[in-house]
Amino acid sequence: MTIHLPARGRLGLAFAAACLASLSLFDTAFAQTPAAQTAAPSTTAVPVPPAPPPPVLLSREALAGAIGVREQALKSDESYQLLESLTTEVGQRFAGTAGDKAGVEWAVKTLRDLGFTNVHTQEVIVPRWIRGEASFDVLAPYPMSMVTTAIGGSIGTPDEGLDAPIVMVQDIAALQALPEGTARGKIVFFNGRMERTRDGSGYGKAVRARTEGPSIAGSLGAVGVVIRSVGTSKNRIAHTGTLSYNVSSPRIPAVSISNPDADLLERQVAQTRPEGKAAGQAVKVRMRVTARDLPQVRSANVIGDLPGTDLANEIVLIGGHLDSWDTGHGVQDDGAGVAIAIAAARLAASANPKPRRTIRVVLFANEEFGLSGAGRYPVAIGDEGVANHAFAMEADLGDGPVWKLSARVPQQYWPTIEQVHRVVRSLEVELGDNTSNGGADLGPLRRLGVPILSPQLDATTYFDIHHTVNDTLDQVDPAHLRQSTTVFAVTAYAAAIVDGPVPRYSQ
Amino acid sequence: MTIHLPARGRLGLAFAAACLASLSLFDTAFAQTPAAQTAAPSTTAVPVPPAPPPPVLLSREALAGAIGVREQALKSDESYQLLESLTTEVGQRFAGTAGDKAGVEWAVKTLRDLGFTNVHTQEVIVPRWIRGEASFDVLAPYPMSMVTTAIGGSIGTPDEGLDAPIVMVQDIAALQALPEGTARGKIVFFNGRMERTRDGSGYGKAVRARTEGPSIAGSLGAVGVVIRSVGTSKNRIAHTGTLSYNVSSPRIPAVSISNPDADLLERQVAQTRPEGKAAGQAVKVRMRVTARDLPQVRSANVIGDLPGTDLANEIVLIGGHLDSWDTGHGVQDDGAGVAIAIAAARLAASANPKPRRTIRVVLFANEEFGLSGAGRYPVAIGDEGVANHAFAMEADLGDGPVWKLSARVPQQYWPTIEQVHRVVRSLEVELGDNTSNGGADLGPLRRLGVPILSPQLDATTYFDIHHTVNDTLDQVDPAHLRQSTTVFAVTAYAAAIVDGPVPRYSQ
Repeated sequence: MTIHLPARGRLGLAFAAACLASLSLFDTAFAQTPAAQTAAPSTTAVPVPPAPPPPVLLSREALAGAIGVREQALKSDESYQLLESLTTEVGQRFAGTAGDKAGVEWAVKTLRDLGFTNVHTQEVIVPRWIRGEASFDVLAPYPMSMVTTAIGGSIGTPDEGLDAPIVMVQDIAALQALPEGTARGKIVFFNGRMERTRDGSGYGKAVRARTEGPSIAGSLGAVGVVIRSVGTSKNRIAHTGTLSYNVSSPRIPAVSISNPDADLLERQVAQTRPEGKAAGQAVKVRMRVTARDLPQVRSANVIGDLPGTDLANEIVLIGGHLDSWDTGHGVQDDGAGVAIAIAAARLAASANPKPRRTIRVVLFANEEFGLSGAGRYPVAIGDEGVANHAFAMEADLGDGPVWKLSARVPQQYWPTIEQVHRVVRSLEVELGDNTSNGGADLGPLRRLGVPILSPQLDATTYFDIHHTVNDTLDQVDPAHLRQSTTVFAVTAYAAAIVDGPVPRYSQ
Repeated sequence: MTIHLPARGRLGLAFAAACLASLSLFDTAFAQTPAAQTAAPSTTAVPVPPAPPPPVLLSREALAGAIGVREQALKSDESYQLLESLTTEVGQRFAGTAGDKAGVEWAVKTLRDLGFTNVHTQEVIVPRWIRGEASFDVLAPYPMSMVTTAIGGSIGTPDEGLDAPIVMVQDIAALQALPEGTARGKIVFFNGRMERTRDGSGYGKAVRARTEGPSIAGSLGAVGVVIRSVGTSKNRIAHTGTLSYNVSSPRIPAVSISNPDADLLERQVAQTRPEGKAAGQAVKVRMRVTARDLPQVRSANVIGDLPGTDLANEIVLIGGHLDSWDTGHGVQDDGAGVAIAIAAARLAASANPKPRRTIRVVLFANEEFGLSGAGRYPVAIGDEGVANHAFAMEADLGDGPVWKLSARVPQQYWPTIEQVHRVVRSLEVELGDNTSNGGADLGPLRRLGVPILSPQLDATTYFDIHHTVNDTLDQVDPAHLRQSTTVFAVTAYAAAIVDGPVPRYSQ
């Protein structure tokens, strides 16, 4: 990839170098970066290997502006107010529902009222799935009812429900390792527990049982799937989320049960073992699901700009997704991201000196049930539109706080990230690395080479409430939300003022 | 009341007095009791006022036995094993359900298997109420669905539900203070919050809205009632419990909504005020309840004895209630009490020296929905049977730990309570007072003068799960349950070995 570094870029670098001794924001971390260590003056004529592009740094004025953003943001409750408004006036916004429509209306009105320009919607076609009712009852050895909900996209059962013995496994590998025929005619119980982690990686490991499990179980002759909720809550609430039916496998219905109910089902299974009180009996259950698909309907991405100055045709995208699951109110997932994006954009745009690039808020449609809006966005804006995107970032992991600043940017911009980190490290933010993927909605842009900025939200408690009835405003910590908004605002500001042109990220 | 202190009693007292210098269990607290301060030797001839009865104290051997009970109990997990068994094999035991019947069968088998004698049931007629389904939807200004459940005993609504504007009040007094006609045709929203307290007193204050609110609202012309859950949980789960319809007031349906939903409803109401975004609009809701009554059915108290020695005809009753609400699994309420009672009785009965009185476990039927078993017990055993009850105690406030030892005993037995406290104070148990009522099931016995022993369970977090779907085994702390079982066992042992005869408590 060829790097064009214009005169303005070199000027910025010179300014930054002049600041090294006077600004405490520059210290050892900058000197330690590989880019910095290997950067050689362009006048040195060494034929091979070609010198890496020189680092791009924020000017002294830009850094002062970033500090100003931080200080203003730490005094602002705008993101919390936005979240309270969205929660109180809209609530759940599951794709294709009245709440989804109300969310789009709320977003358009809110962006207009807050002074965004170019506020518009992009039509997005979304699936329409009805959760209906679900029940899950143990029939033997010890009858009892459990707290359950359908997995997103599940087909329904017959009206009278589906009675079958269960076969309990920890995960897909364990299911596939069973003797042939073991799962035939049974309901597969995936009992693996999700691990609590700060970066949310425990979710990625556990979620395969939900996304791929139903089709794999179906291909083995199972008639249904029940999973332990892919979440860390000890409350008796069931966790939903989407499944992905494989077109070449039989479609079978799938539900989740709460963690305490999964514990109980596990204890019932234990009693049917040779040493148990119900030795030799089978654990039989009845699951009933009235979920069904309806024709697809229209939803929309909602977009609003805060124009830049001399580079106004270039875009720094800050996103969240407007939709939510239908179980809770879509507060942490992803009302928080919506609120952070809008408030951070406004904080960044109102700083002095003004951002040079346009800061664009994109509130994506239907992330949860198929990433519809994320797929639509680059198509709607076309190649030229995508090419204008200097950086993109998304908040979609709850209210925070941000605990690490990562990215996926051209190498010469990593020193910029380090500068941003210096501005926010007093907020207990670590410096991450340059391999982050950002949010799920950024996938299509990332694959097209748009550089990604990634303030990482602390997910330690996020999966206690994610995709459950508990995703309500009461679970939000206003101080966390303020910190997260601050880090996103500072990062967006730096992205909108740093020298360019910003090349595509080379995969 | 005449006090007969037999020779054995005096001997015990003499033994105890002789131990004062050598046993660290006796210290200042004994000397500080009013009873001890005023106790005069019976040889002192003072005509008026009559000398209070001399204190009754545990013998040295009995105290050593009590310490032995404590040490054995601290090594035992029997109460947790019982609770796990009841949870896994039975689950919910709401009056008149299959779970109630299964609970009775479990209790009879368990008491027999554990060596209790005289294991039998007392038939109890219980009401049969079907919870059915409930929904609570805000129609205006901002449509959304809330997490709800019917209040126990509520009548149903019409099939299509009940649409009405709400009137929000904090409590019954606030409702009664409204201008006449304000509640007519409306659904009354009782929005008072329950206060978190260690002794559970916050529940008693808040619960009136549930028990009396529906009839008071009905008498003011309201068509329905919705209450903020009488519980301290921030989870999106609704709290049930019983209401008490007044026969002379119109019966109207009643539901609760979860605390986060009540917060949301409160925010919606705020938006309809003059300064709000929905100024001038009414908050309109639709509530739908399919609850209904069926004919009464049979349940049972379950009773088992561990016989004493020379005073085997006297009873120390240790109880819990076998029934539960239908929402959770009846673990903290009151599986824990069932487990504590059985395990504590066994620990006390197996100590050395053996208890003189018979320790009886009574597992009461239907405490939750009308105290049916508690009312039946004294009737079934008759006046003579009641007269044989030396002491009674009940565990019905969760897994504990016990934080205070209280009682309601004849004055001369308060020093015994103080001795028991010395044995358990290392378990972080405070000394309470002599005015405790004990558990709800003890009410009829208490009113008949049976002395009450009351190890008080710490209720700080109990009302996070009480009467909700969250009342499952996962919420139990085995260490708390062990400590509680220990204190109940030591107390029961002391009660079963202390000198008598134990007079009736004078109200």
